[in-house]
Amino acid sequence: MSGKPPVAFIGLGAMGFGMATNLVKEGYPVTGFDVYQPTLDRFQAAGGSTASKPSEAVSGKDYCVCMVATAQQAQSVLLDGDNAAISSLPQGAVVLLCSTVPCEYVQGLEKELAARGRPDILLVDCPVSGGAIRAANGTLSIMVGGSSAAIEKGSDLLKTMSDPEKLYIVKGGVGAGSNMKMCHQVLAANQILSSSEALGFASRLGLDLNKVAPVILKSEGWSWMLENRLPRILDPKHLPLASAVTIILKDTSIITKEARRYEFPTPMTSAAEQAYFASLARGYGPEDDGGLIRMYTDGKEHVGALKGLAETEEEKLSLVIDLLKGIHLASATETLSFAQHVGLELEQVFELCINAAGGSAMLSAAGPEIMKTLRGEEAIQEPSAGGKTAPLQVFAANLTRAVEEAQALKVPIYLGNAALNLMRVALRTTPKGSSDLPARAMISVWGKGSS
Amino acid sequence: MSGKPPVAFIGLGAMGFGMATNLVKEGYPVTGFDVYQPTLDRFQAAGGSTASKPSEAVSGKDYCVCMVATAQQAQSVLLDGDNAAISSLPQGAVVLLCSTVPCEYVQGLEKELAARGRPDILLVDCPVSGGAIRAANGTLSIMVGGSSAAIEKGSDLLKTMSDPEKLYIVKGGVGAGSNMKMCHQVLAANQILSSSEALGFASRLGLDLNKVAPVILKSEGWSWMLENRLPRILDPKHLPLASAVTIILKDTSIITKEARRYEFPTPMTSAAEQAYFASLARGYGPEDDGGLIRMYTDGKEHVGALKGLAETEEEKLSLVIDLLKGIHLASATETLSFAQHVGLELEQVFELCINAAGGSAMLSAAGPEIMKTLRGEEAIQEPSAGGKTAPLQVFAANLTRAVEEAQALKVPIYLGNAALNLMRVALRTTPKGSSDLPARAMISVWGKGSS
Repeated sequence: MSGKPPVAFIGLGAMGFGMATNLVKEGYPVTGFDVYQPTLDRFQAAGGSTASKPSEAVSGKDYCVCMVATAQQAQSVLLDGDNAAISSLPQGAVVLLCSTVPCEYVQGLEKELAARGRPDILLVDCPVSGGAIRAANGTLSIMVGGSSAAIEKGSDLLKTMSDPEKLYIVKGGVGAGSNMKMCHQVLAANQILSSSEALGFASRLGLDLNKVAPVILKSEGWSWMLENRLPRILDPKHLPLASAVTIILKDTSIITKEARRYEFPTPMTSAAEQAYFASLARGYGPEDDGGLIRMYTDGKEHVGALKGLAETEEEKLSLVIDLLKGIHLASATETLSFAQHVGLELEQVFELCINAAGGSAMLSAAGPEIMKTLRGEEAIQEPSAGGKTAPLQVFAANLTRAVEEAQALKVPIYLGNAALNLMRVALRTTPKGSSDLPARAMISVWGKGSS
Repeated sequence: MSGKPPVAFIGLGAMGFGMATNLVKEGYPVTGFDVYQPTLDRFQAAGGSTASKPSEAVSGKDYCVCMVATAQQAQSVLLDGDNAAISSLPQGAVVLLCSTVPCEYVQGLEKELAARGRPDILLVDCPVSGGAIRAANGTLSIMVGGSSAAIEKGSDLLKTMSDPEKLYIVKGGVGAGSNMKMCHQVLAANQILSSSEALGFASRLGLDLNKVAPVILKSEGWSWMLENRLPRILDPKHLPLASAVTIILKDTSIITKEARRYEFPTPMTSAAEQAYFASLARGYGPEDDGGLIRMYTDGKEHVGALKGLAETEEEKLSLVIDLLKGIHLASATETLSFAQHVGLELEQVFELCINAAGGSAMLSAAGPEIMKTLRGEEAIQEPSAGGKTAPLQVFAANLTRAVEEAQALKVPIYLGNAALNLMRVALRTTPKGSSDLPARAMISVWGKGSS
């Protein structure tokens, strides 16, 4: 015996399998459950035990990690399905729900456990981020919401699964972890698509993607997603499959659904979601999301050869970078505004996002200014004191040139057009006070920061 | 001799041919020019004379009607091409430019005529609307801008080409006619796509389109475009070709290009434009725009069977109507706000649009209230006095249900999502004053009306 307590692990998909085998490696006796038998065999070969039902997996275990794909699946394995975990979880057991689910769901789950006579179960709302490799290495980012008692009891497991610098305890109880993940995914949803939108635009401009991509990565158009997706965007077969379109679409739909519940606008994420839906109808759903570049490049033979306005490679490249900068400023503003609306601590959101898959050069540059105004410390129309970004008018003028060029080439630029229109709305709705409004003035679209 | 003066007619496409033969029928000696020889033969058979060059067509004619497809073509036939008209137009001739072109272009044309030594040429900026049948019947809507002298000289021709009730003299000189047409086309651009979006959504809901379409036409979701396009949306081959996707896309791009020049937001029209661009890449460009329903229905086999939330046919139908109402409220607001921004008289815009292809039940209901607030006669947050529309919160709640359902079925709803997000922006940016804001409060997105 290693001295470590037995753990039930429900949901051995790409992420779950890595997380569970990491726990095995760290000396935990882990009993895994999954609906797919070959995965169970593989888990046994990796040193785990297996169970054929959720109730059997959790029986006698004080610790249960749930890493299924959706809220519906969580509901089934924990509460409603045949042989659900609830019937066998020991008194005072802790359930770590690591799946990405809506805040509304996990808060409802806490209430339902109590209503069904199990208020003793300690629920930790702890979605993760970082991909399958970091899952297997135990270096995930984890966003944790829950009671102090629940978090304390789950603490050793959370530390084992995460990078110590990327374990975020989020204030606000159950639901706060999911809200934090959701806000992070606003950036992910926009920046996965912006990567394909920008490189698809670059391709339609006639640029050599292999030549310009390294330059874009060193520019202010950088995002973590672009850097991460690039090899699969550039590969004509978009292989290997790292993350399917359906995965980011699921999280995107959580964002817009929750935003509707909060009656909060998410114009950028909604625009991305429609492009994802359109890609499903083209059969891209199960494929790597790097293949979304085809939404911009496929069928160009129907459009015919068109001459744009930009002449030199340098001009063209700067349009691509300006497109990314504009989109990323808008997505950073949507993220932080939404985060404030759902009651998250902005500094923590920012810190988490710049160190995770949501990072972008624009978020790093504009984030601190945006937060200052959201907190009411600096009026929206004041010239930016010590701000690191150009005036919003400059962003808008540069993005205008990119949108103008995309129009000349008849390429759809879903996010670029959405971002430009939102900048124009911001510039028209912000109280006048300076001819050069700071970039953070974009927050007025989401209802101004000072309220 | 009929006593009517000879007329040169340049551009004998679907519209131009009808307009020119109507002039022949009305007793004008018309000399036609077109680049396509078979058309010239057909025009001769219809009683016209023909010319092989623009300069030859206009030679000795005090009247020249130009109905080419684009500003580039107008520039070529009038000024820059080999044998352009400018060299042969008699002193004091009137040129009626009926093509849909950007205001910026026609204003530049007026200046260029003067700069090239022909300030004597009387330019009338007079785009038309109404389709090929009304062109041939001489019952078009015509929007006329120009000097009094130019309009007076062109008056008999304008009256012969138009329905007497639909000849609109627009204040503001050359460019005002094009601006009026452009604002009308904001409605057209949105409502051509909304027709396909709504019926595509209905199809994905499993509704029988032939059964529900007549009900939708009698509802508050009605638009002129829906009624006009319906037969070709319902026809699986989308025939006969009445108006190609490239036609409405051309006008859509004029709107967004001019909006960028004015630094004015057009989030609805820009969202429509991206969907049109995406449709080009699917080869739909030369096809009837009724076929855009395929943007919503094609490829559903990749998405699989999904269960929505609505159970009954009645519920489903009401979602479709609410989708249309939300989109049409947003497009009406975008239209009138943009019209005010470019300096048009709102009453005239409204009058023209409800009697032309831009008409919708929502424009008729909400237009008067929107205009009142745009003119500063009624504060945006006041409860609507005598308004005919539901509060904006009700529009948003109903549209939310439609968007929620589309999400469950994984159908892209480009305009519906754009409209809902704009409603949410409006509800967050409007000064608080009433829990029920009137529908016209949507104008705050475009920068509030009172400025």
